[in-house]
This record gives sequence, structure tokens and C-alpha cells, in this order.
Amino acid sequence: MSTQIFENKMKVRDYECDGQGVVNNANYLHYFEHTRHEFMESCGIRLRDLTAENILPVVRRASLKYKNSLRGSEEFICTARIERKGLRYLFHQQIRRIPDNTLCAEGVIEVVCVIGGKVNAPAMFDKAFADYIVWLDK
Amino acid sequence: MSTQIFENKMKVRDYECDGQGVVNNANYLHYFEHTRHEFMESCGIRLRDLTAENILPVVRRASLKYKNSLRGSEEFICTARIERKGLRYLFHQQIRRIPDNTLCAEGVIEVVCVIGGKVNAPAMFDKAFADYIVWLDK
Amino acid sequence: MSTQIFENKMKVRDYECDGQGVVNNANYLHYFEHTRHEFMESCGIRLRDLTAENILPVVRRASLKYKNSLRGSEEFICTARIERKGLRYLFHQQIRRIPDNTLCAEGVIEVVCVIGGKVNAPAMFDKAFADYIVWLDK
Amino acid sequence: MSTQIFENKMKVRDYECDGQGVVNNANYLHYFEHTRHEFMESCGIRLRDLTAENILPVVRRASLKYKNSLRGSEEFICTARIERKGLRYLFHQQIRRIPDNTLCAEGVIEVVCVIGGKVNAPAMFDKAFADYIVWLDK
Repeated sequence: MSTQIFENKMKVRDYECDGQGVVNNANYLHYFEHTRHEFMESCGIRLRDLTAENILPVVRRASLKYKNSLRGSEEFICTARIERKGLRYLFHQQIRRIPDNTLCAEGVIEVVCVIGGKVNAPAMFDKAFADYIVWLDK
Repeated sequence: MSTQIFENKMKVRDYECDGQGVVNNANYLHYFEHTRHEFMESCGIRLRDLTAENILPVVRRASLKYKNSLRGSEEFICTARIERKGLRYLFHQQIRRIPDNTLCAEGVIEVVCVIGGKVNAPAMFDKAFADYIVWLDK
Repeated sequence: MSTQIFENKMKVRDYECDGQGVVNNANYLHYFEHTRHEFMESCGIRLRDLTAENILPVVRRASLKYKNSLRGSEEFICTARIERKGLRYLFHQQIRRIPDNTLCAEGVIEVVCVIGGKVNAPAMFDKAFADYIVWLDK
Repeated sequence: MSTQIFENKMKVRDYECDGQGVVNNANYLHYFEHTRHEFMESCGIRLRDLTAENILPVVRRASLKYKNSLRGSEEFICTARIERKGLRYLFHQQIRRIPDNTLCAEGVIEVVCVIGGKVNAPAMFDKAFADYIVWLDK
């Protein structure tokens, strides 16, 4: 049985473009983050509930490749494929423009979970994300 | 003795401009807010300390006039003149471009302070802001 | 026949919240703007095409009331009701949280259209927005 | 003679923090970009003049490591050290908190310059950045 890839449909908002008329490079991290949080929510976990319990998902590394610029009002699919390596969650994410499926950006976002000041991987995450996670060191 | 006006020198960052090549309208609220927080800090009060104590300054109303557009890399002075009316703080704010002193935007931002879920005006604010506040109903 | 109100369903993205755990005041202007651009697009007019033709919708004034804070991942409806007064378009906009219909923010955003450096009201706008505009001075 | 490192002093604005109370991960790309543009400007090149001439610096890759979170109102130095490899400019950037010099984030941002749709390295850049660039393949 293969693991699933999460897909989130989004649309460029004009204020996300900068003076060059294309989406500013930093906003792709926003798109990726929002998609990760939509993924979590689809699994029953909401970020602000985690924050209230002092469980803090934290980005440790991000590696981004910008391929083709998104422009105002364009629609796109932002995806997330998830690997678990030690205590780290590796989100392999892509942004593909609709309707031509052009790859606009891709990245690997490494996230750890800080609980009470220490990096940990909550059992509830493994359960909630079971259909999506590929375990790299099992 | 006249009351003081707080001045904060800032500079447009290119990512704050949108596809029209000028600063996006929402960012003026960011400039105004940052200047209010710089004002507070100059009086010895830091926002994140307030947040930690659950004292929450909250914007209730904002009235903005956009006069002339700011463009990438332009420097400007953002000012704040403060009135107190009942439990409300009224920040009269302007943004003037350097070096020609052109008025780019002005606004009145009405802020109240929510403490434990209730609107209140902490005595420490009156003391800290004493040199700046004009009392409208005294 | 009554004029129409445009409705745009949106959802808070967690990065739009600030350290107080609620949507930052400036982002409501982003929500309002995105909804106006979605409205225009539903009428066949796309902002970046206007920009390419040097037709620049510009915000002149904004008057905002903040009623109830939006928090991370909450869904809401952002509306726009449009009046035309002289060369000005007045967008009466509201943000209502789903599912309880709580009014979170409302505002009046005054927009003019700058063409070749002069304020003008393009005939194509009147035609495109015909089902929505209430003429105040006819 | 050693090459220079560009330094840009900045300060966290409270709206740059998210619901976790720390600067959101995407904003570090904003800090890095603003510092690159300040660097260019210190060398006599302003981004919006480039845009007007259709010379478009474009981010191709970004590799980021997040070490320690910045919080509201903290001051920091953002640096840039520049390498030239083929037609690519590699900006090695760091963010260090003041006053303790803690490394908060570091990244390598790969930028190319698109002129008339083609990647090129303008001679004026080499001249303007002469004191800063380390040539990797000369």
C-alpha cells in the first residue's frame, strides 16, 4: 500500500506579488506552511490547539528551488509528501500551477516538534499522520 | 507646556510593494503599528511583555487617508500624536516622505487595552505616556 | 430588482496571526482587497491585466471597525457591496466568521481608478459591475 | 586584500511574529532580501531602477537553517557575503541577535539576473560589487 500525498488548492492573492509583478520568494514559504497546517488539520490536529498545549512544531531547515514564477490570480496545487527520520519530519513540497501543471517551486522543509523546550515526536502525530508518513530509519 | 509627538524613521522594503510598484495599502497599518510599538518601547513598555502578562492592546477602529504612494527604498517619518478619551487611546498618525516632507498617508487608530477580557486603561500607561497624552475629557 | 452583494469564502492562515494569537489588524485590509479583486475577476476583470494597461485602482480612504478577533484556521465570509459616487467606488465590506455568522470586522474602502495619471471611471467598469453598483448621485 | 561582508542592522517588528510568539519562518527570507537590496543600494544600484529597466534579479534557490528564534522587538545584524559562480550570485547570509551575537538563522541564496528573458550577469554589477565578490571559477 503506497503512502498518500496531501494536496491543497490555492490561488495567488495580488498583494503577495512584489514590484516585479510576481509572487515574492518569501511567500512560497507561507504557501508551504499553510499547506502543512491544512494537512495537519485534515488529520485532526489544529496548530493553535498545539500552541495552547505548548507543543510547538518548528522549522529547522528549508531548501527551496524556484522554477517558474507565479503571477497574480493564478491558481496552483501545493503538495506535501512526508518522511520521518529520527525525530525529524521531512516535508517534500511542490507548487504546480493550474491548469498546465507547470512546476513553479519545490522544497524540503524539515520540522521538529518542541515540547517543554525539548525536541520530541508525539505519539499522537504518528497515529494521526499514519497514512502519509514514510519512515526512513525503520 | 506642549505635548510631544513621537517620530519614527523608517524605510520602504521592496517586498512591501505590490504589483503596482507601490507600497500595498495594508502595509501602512503595519508602519503605523510598528511606530506605536516603538513609541511604547521608548516609554519603557514592550509589547511582548504585555502579551506575557495578558495585557492586550487591541485596535478597535482605524480611519486612513492615502495621499501619495510610497515606492521601493523611499525613507519616511512615521509620527504618532496621542489623545485619551474615556478608555480609548486615539493615535493620530502620519507618514511623510523624506526628504521632501510629502504627506503620504494619515490615519487615526483607536486602541483599547483588554485585560482579563475587559477593556481597561492601566495606570502604568498613563504614567509611561504622560509626556505625550492629551486628555480629551478631563 | 435589488443589487447584489459579492461573497468570498476565506480561511485564516496561521501566519496571518501575530503574537497575540489573533489575525493582525493589517491583514483585514488584505482580506478586503483580495475579495475586491475576486469580485472584479468574477466580472471578467483581472487586476494584473489592468496593471499591464496602466489602469490603476487605488485605495484613497479606508475606514475600519474591528468587532471580534479572528483566530488561526477559522473560516469566514468576506462580502462587498458597492456604491458609485462621482468618480469614487465605495466598497462596503464585512467579515463574518463561519459558522456562527459573528461580525468580525467591517469597513468602507474608497477606491478610484487612475488612468494615465488622472482619476477616471472607465466605462468598462460600469458595464462589468452593473449588477452590483448602486449609483448614489444619479 | 580581503573581500568585505555587508552588514545591515534591523529590528523585529511585532507583526512579523506569528501565533507561537516568534518571527515566522518566511520572514527570514524577507530580512535576507531586504539586506541584499540594502547591499545593492550601498553600491549605487536600486532595485526599482533595475525593474524599470527590465533587469530582474531572481532568486533561484534558497537553503536556510533556523538556529534560534527571534522574538518581538529584538535587534539583529543581517549579513551578506557574496560569491560569483558562473552567472550565479551566491549570497551567504546570517542573522545574529544583538547584543549576544547568537546565530539565529543562516542561508545561502542563489540569485541570477534575468534581462530580456535571459539569464545574464551585467557588467555594471561586477563593477559595483567589486569590493564584495569572491569569484569561484576564475
